[in-house]
Amino acid sequence: MDPLDDLARWRRPDVGPTVAVVGGGQLARMMQPPAVALGVRLAVLAERPDDSAAQVIPQVSIGSHLDGAAVTRFAEDCDVLTFDHEHVPTPVLEAIAAAGHAVRPGPAALVHAQDKAVMRRRLTDLGVPVPRWRVVTSPEDVAPFAAEVGWPVVLKTVRGGYDGRGVAVVASVEEAAGFWPDGADVLLAEERVDFVRELSALVARSPSGQAAAWPVVATTQVDGMCREVIAPAPGLDPGLAAEAAAIALRIAGELDVVGVLAVELFEVVRDGRPAVLVNELAMRPHNTGHWTIEGAVTSQFEQHLRAVLDLPLGDPRPVAPWAVMVNVVGGARIESHPDLHRALLHVMARDPGVKVHLYGKGVRVGRKLGHVTVFGDDLDGALARARHAADFLAADIDE
Amino acid sequence: MDPLDDLARWRRPDVGPTVAVVGGGQLARMMQPPAVALGVRLAVLAERPDDSAAQVIPQVSIGSHLDGAAVTRFAEDCDVLTFDHEHVPTPVLEAIAAAGHAVRPGPAALVHAQDKAVMRRRLTDLGVPVPRWRVVTSPEDVAPFAAEVGWPVVLKTVRGGYDGRGVAVVASVEEAAGFWPDGADVLLAEERVDFVRELSALVARSPSGQAAAWPVVATTQVDGMCREVIAPAPGLDPGLAAEAAAIALRIAGELDVVGVLAVELFEVVRDGRPAVLVNELAMRPHNTGHWTIEGAVTSQFEQHLRAVLDLPLGDPRPVAPWAVMVNVVGGARIESHPDLHRALLHVMARDPGVKVHLYGKGVRVGRKLGHVTVFGDDLDGALARARHAADFLAADIDE
Repeated sequence: MDPLDDLARWRRPDVGPTVAVVGGGQLARMMQPPAVALGVRLAVLAERPDDSAAQVIPQVSIGSHLDGAAVTRFAEDCDVLTFDHEHVPTPVLEAIAAAGHAVRPGPAALVHAQDKAVMRRRLTDLGVPVPRWRVVTSPEDVAPFAAEVGWPVVLKTVRGGYDGRGVAVVASVEEAAGFWPDGADVLLAEERVDFVRELSALVARSPSGQAAAWPVVATTQVDGMCREVIAPAPGLDPGLAAEAAAIALRIAGELDVVGVLAVELFEVVRDGRPAVLVNELAMRPHNTGHWTIEGAVTSQFEQHLRAVLDLPLGDPRPVAPWAVMVNVVGGARIESHPDLHRALLHVMARDPGVKVHLYGKGVRVGRKLGHVTVFGDDLDGALARARHAADFLAADIDE
Repeated sequence: MDPLDDLARWRRPDVGPTVAVVGGGQLARMMQPPAVALGVRLAVLAERPDDSAAQVIPQVSIGSHLDGAAVTRFAEDCDVLTFDHEHVPTPVLEAIAAAGHAVRPGPAALVHAQDKAVMRRRLTDLGVPVPRWRVVTSPEDVAPFAAEVGWPVVLKTVRGGYDGRGVAVVASVEEAAGFWPDGADVLLAEERVDFVRELSALVARSPSGQAAAWPVVATTQVDGMCREVIAPAPGLDPGLAAEAAAIALRIAGELDVVGVLAVELFEVVRDGRPAVLVNELAMRPHNTGHWTIEGAVTSQFEQHLRAVLDLPLGDPRPVAPWAVMVNVVGGARIESHPDLHRALLHVMARDPGVKVHLYGKGVRVGRKLGHVTVFGDDLDGALARARHAADFLAADIDE
């Protein structure tokens, strides 16, 4: 029996609405705990029955997010459609929204997280500080841009990249040609920013325009993938923190975002003063917000559900001076240490305060398998503890 | 297809163990969030497909906890059997344990939470302070006991009572006869304790004997049902708090409890000094521990899973000076206000910091439908906020 045929049995006047989440990854999975608390039902459109979220959510529909008919049918039986990722084609979402179903964030907002060229153009029009950029149509087209901003140049596929995929730093036209994906009409070229560090400004916005901002965090990327987050960003100039949050709130408002918006930023020095440039946007719970599960009064996952259901937003304040999140990314030896549950014994015995999140994913080198969070008064201690736990789970260390 | 036939598809070497929970109530439901985080699977034996826990856990088996064959079959396909309530018959559990399956807590421990006469006898043998008590075999049998301790006397059914059911305060043999349930061979008679307030000492213990204690809390009962919890108990004498925790840890050890143990206590004055008497035991997450979801580094639900899986226990320390939990108990007008989701709008708009938990249960007067928690530095403020939110959700107030 298709689970969707069975949705009617969940419909009781005393039971909450159903949020349909496209994508069965860990972000959908981590929406389940706040859904349980709020009495909200989740339904998930997953590619496989053992996808991360499909393991923990009863209402699973199997299908591809690229299959317009499957996404449409999935949306029709639920109260609101939202996302674990940005990969649903815009025309599919436009058709669903045009048929009167709630799509949050809506396709007109979401396209800015789907198409980096659209995003760059819009942010530039809004006067938001961004790296210098140009849409290029061939490897040769990169040269005049590089003449302005200097080699090397960052090339990005306009759609479909994530976690460092679809991004390359190239130092010549030849390297640009080597990276240029088959069939790509255009790429986005950007100056390579000489940043001090990376920051993330996470906000949420509801359909009625209410918005809430978590503290701006510092993030560390390894190979283009988020590895560590410190909340709040240590030593961040208060004026710059306020500016970063204001930029995120302004983008959320101007783009009519509903749900969580993550604005990834470069912290730079301009004219001797600290400044920020917007790097990427994501319109969903984001890796740089996982610390909020334990570290804030309202987590990004709860807040996303509240926002897409047009419930009033929750308090985003942190519960401790510091929270540190470290991703568990499968290390070189992970495939000979696939039993993450067994690894929990060691991690928990060593540190009763570390909060472990495992995503139920098959282990693979370089794959995000989970994350750990430590919060408290002692930043250095929290960093050391979280790194140790994550490294052990990733099989990077043995004790 | 019976979900149990389908368990094999969850078996991957890189996926955690499955915990089988007997009972589909809110306690099983609230185990799902930490199970999601830890990468642990839950399976639930529920009476109905729309039971509170069955709404949020994919692996549901429908059956009665009184059906030995159903419980046995349910246990066989999982790694460990645990409980949402204490109502599985002891012989069923003994047979499952004898067949080599992990039952935690084990039947020899659990019987002390199932049979109040067994519990009273054992605690008395251990020298744990309890109210004066006697097992009585007829209404007339109450009279000599009352002659010792004074009328009124508390009568309790030995098995099956909860939330004030199966308990009566009687002032005469006639009233005892009026309460005496049909077919009851014996009842437990207890002195009516003139207590200052009620406390709860919550601990957890693992099979290897590791134990952890949360702060002792103050609880308020209305009509025999937990209504409010303040953590920690305000103004509690530190020596008495330590004694209460020590009693709970000793009971957990002596009875070989695995999982969460709640020890409900009366705070009394004896010889001019504060003292405690043990009232009831529960061997599972308990209403007096719901505050730990947001209020402690490790919640009682996570700790219960860690304990029954023999994982090292987590840090039970509170994250804020105060946490207040108030139950949402259906008020007199609740059946004309069944839409709890709609009520969320008001509660969340008024107070972005209140944490609401709804259990997905059909509304009914006097039924536990959810709870709310507020934590922070200000006890009086937290109490007022949590009471307001709970009263609004219960339809006891209109604004």
